[in-house]
Amino acid sequence: MTTFSLSYTPCFKTSINPIQSAFKIHGGKSGRVTMYATPVSGVNGTAIKERTMIPTKKQFEDPFRQGVIILDGVGYQQTVVVRSYEVGPDKTVTPQSILNLLQETALNHVWMSGLLGDGFGATHGMMKNNLIWVVTRMQVQVDQYPIWGEILEIDTWVGASGKNGMRRDWEIRSHTTGIVFARATSTWVMMNQTTRRLSKMPDEVRAEIEPWFIHKQAITEESPEKIDKLDDNAKYINSGLQAKRSDLDMNHHVNNVKYVGWMLEAIPDECLENYQLSNIILEYRRECGSSDVVQSLCEPEELGIIKNDKDINYLDRCSIGVGGAGLLNCLMKEGTIRFTHVLQVKEESKCQEIVRGKTTWKKRTNHYSYCG
Amino acid sequence: MTTFSLSYTPCFKTSINPIQSAFKIHGGKSGRVTMYATPVSGVNGTAIKERTMIPTKKQFEDPFRQGVIILDGVGYQQTVVVRSYEVGPDKTVTPQSILNLLQETALNHVWMSGLLGDGFGATHGMMKNNLIWVVTRMQVQVDQYPIWGEILEIDTWVGASGKNGMRRDWEIRSHTTGIVFARATSTWVMMNQTTRRLSKMPDEVRAEIEPWFIHKQAITEESPEKIDKLDDNAKYINSGLQAKRSDLDMNHHVNNVKYVGWMLEAIPDECLENYQLSNIILEYRRECGSSDVVQSLCEPEELGIIKNDKDINYLDRCSIGVGGAGLLNCLMKEGTIRFTHVLQVKEESKCQEIVRGKTTWKKRTNHYSYCG
Repeated sequence: MTTFSLSYTPCFKTSINPIQSAFKIHGGKSGRVTMYATPVSGVNGTAIKERTMIPTKKQFEDPFRQGVIILDGVGYQQTVVVRSYEVGPDKTVTPQSILNLLQETALNHVWMSGLLGDGFGATHGMMKNNLIWVVTRMQVQVDQYPIWGEILEIDTWVGASGKNGMRRDWEIRSHTTGIVFARATSTWVMMNQTTRRLSKMPDEVRAEIEPWFIHKQAITEESPEKIDKLDDNAKYINSGLQAKRSDLDMNHHVNNVKYVGWMLEAIPDECLENYQLSNIILEYRRECGSSDVVQSLCEPEELGIIKNDKDINYLDRCSIGVGGAGLLNCLMKEGTIRFTHVLQVKEESKCQEIVRGKTTWKKRTNHYSYCG
Repeated sequence: MTTFSLSYTPCFKTSINPIQSAFKIHGGKSGRVTMYATPVSGVNGTAIKERTMIPTKKQFEDPFRQGVIILDGVGYQQTVVVRSYEVGPDKTVTPQSILNLLQETALNHVWMSGLLGDGFGATHGMMKNNLIWVVTRMQVQVDQYPIWGEILEIDTWVGASGKNGMRRDWEIRSHTTGIVFARATSTWVMMNQTTRRLSKMPDEVRAEIEPWFIHKQAITEESPEKIDKLDDNAKYINSGLQAKRSDLDMNHHVNNVKYVGWMLEAIPDECLENYQLSNIILEYRRECGSSDVVQSLCEPEELGIIKNDKDINYLDRCSIGVGGAGLLNCLMKEGTIRFTHVLQVKEESKCQEIVRGKTTWKKRTNHYSYCG
């Protein structure tokens, strides 16, 4: 039933460079096992369990996180108020904050399930089999941006993705009006923590999580869109990006949300001023360490705009003697603009891709000024 | 009664370079009025009020933010659960997340008061007088770091600071045990939004906020510690720091929390691995724009360690032929280490200080490994 079957199934047995997690709750560099081996300063495992009260059986309500079980016992809903530091200069929630909230609600869903072994999202069965979750694809579609102080309801649920994967979806709504602000979907697989190879889902783990699977999809898509590979000829390149210590997460890896930040940094100013991100697709390829120096490349998509004669004529006019920026200016006069992205690490002569991405931008309905 | 009387009172009348806000909820570059002039993309003022339901009179309870009025009607308490993206590699809350939560609860306190005009923390009387709040000093003392998933209670309240200032204090406790994790205090003054000069507190504003003032202090201090000026001879220098677009806040200015990040980036690795920040003092001097290239300087404090004969002998031994790093290594063998900080912008030949700071670091009780 799933739309997001895994395209790299052959890797399950032979992967040498497995797709590694970019999501905060997973990861670890090849050959370095970090998941449950990092003692917290002054806090041991027992103390963590006491202090954080991780439940050992399914909970239906969490008054502190303002979470409840929904969707006939298998989904999770959390009510959150947009905080002052989660919004950008235009007082709307930043894409990064949305990703943070998706991660947070996903983890709290697992927390409620009673399946959480250690707090990283892995179930008891996964821990027994030395498995961790890795995210391979993520899509977030924003129809309208919530604003500072707005009350949100975030629903999340899971489903099957192929034989060995899991889909996790989200819907973000206004608590007051019920209007849907955003929808998101993601695909996850399991990886052996030691060998770093993708793993089939063991029966014991399937038995744990399958009762939670439903067929509901937040985003209905014919088939996952392929993201082209960019090379050094991309029109916009931000080089020399490197994680700061504060960008590292619990696994000492660069956080997923940082990747999105780096991707968006490559978008030219004139686009950001007039357009708002309406869709983002991320394909995770390998993780990024703290010493990696990253390049963020992006390229405005031309094909997307050539839909009808008017557009073709328009592009024809644009293409007379203009380079990247000229083309962008032309494209921007249309209502929607799309970019293809890549984050890559240059190692000696070859480039290692970390994330491929695609962003769609819609014209702001009420242009805000950069007067600050 | 206040410990934190303002040291730059003369500025109230003659300031040319007034201390400008570094706090997210304030600011604006000289001559550029941004505070209430920035329309939100697609959201007008009325829509904001409808969507965020800012109260026009005092509220005693906010079920969505999990806030209640305490301290005989003048203080505010909010219950929060530490989120997965608010912790660092050691699974404890980052100093930046603590500052975010302080800002958030302060704003929610004003929200509950019914005094909030526009959502930026300014009261109706302040708006009428074209005044904004600016923070001039902030101190955060952390006894123990909360961990991921821990339930916190954050209390905040305000008091007088001299004739024209306001003190705001916080206490962060474990909801489960009541143990105090952290205490914080800050000093605020008012500034005319147009002239950028510090202002006396108008009677009308005093009438609004004075009923909320109490004498309680989160941190008892004899007198505010003076922070020395550092120059280019500082032992640790991080140069070329520049705000990314995602670091800009609602006022299009570099966020306060980013400053702390920059300060901490200058701390040498060997200290961060073995020590945990236990106290931070920030003195705000001028704000930083998005085009400013910032230097973060820091210097381990030697005097602080010479308290008794043992220490003097110890330092004597250290000082034989060692430079900065050698001295640091010696100091680090003691239980506490202190640094003096400055963030500055070089403009032509002279340096403009943005923030002066002081940090104190305590040895980690349970060293965590950087194995990720």
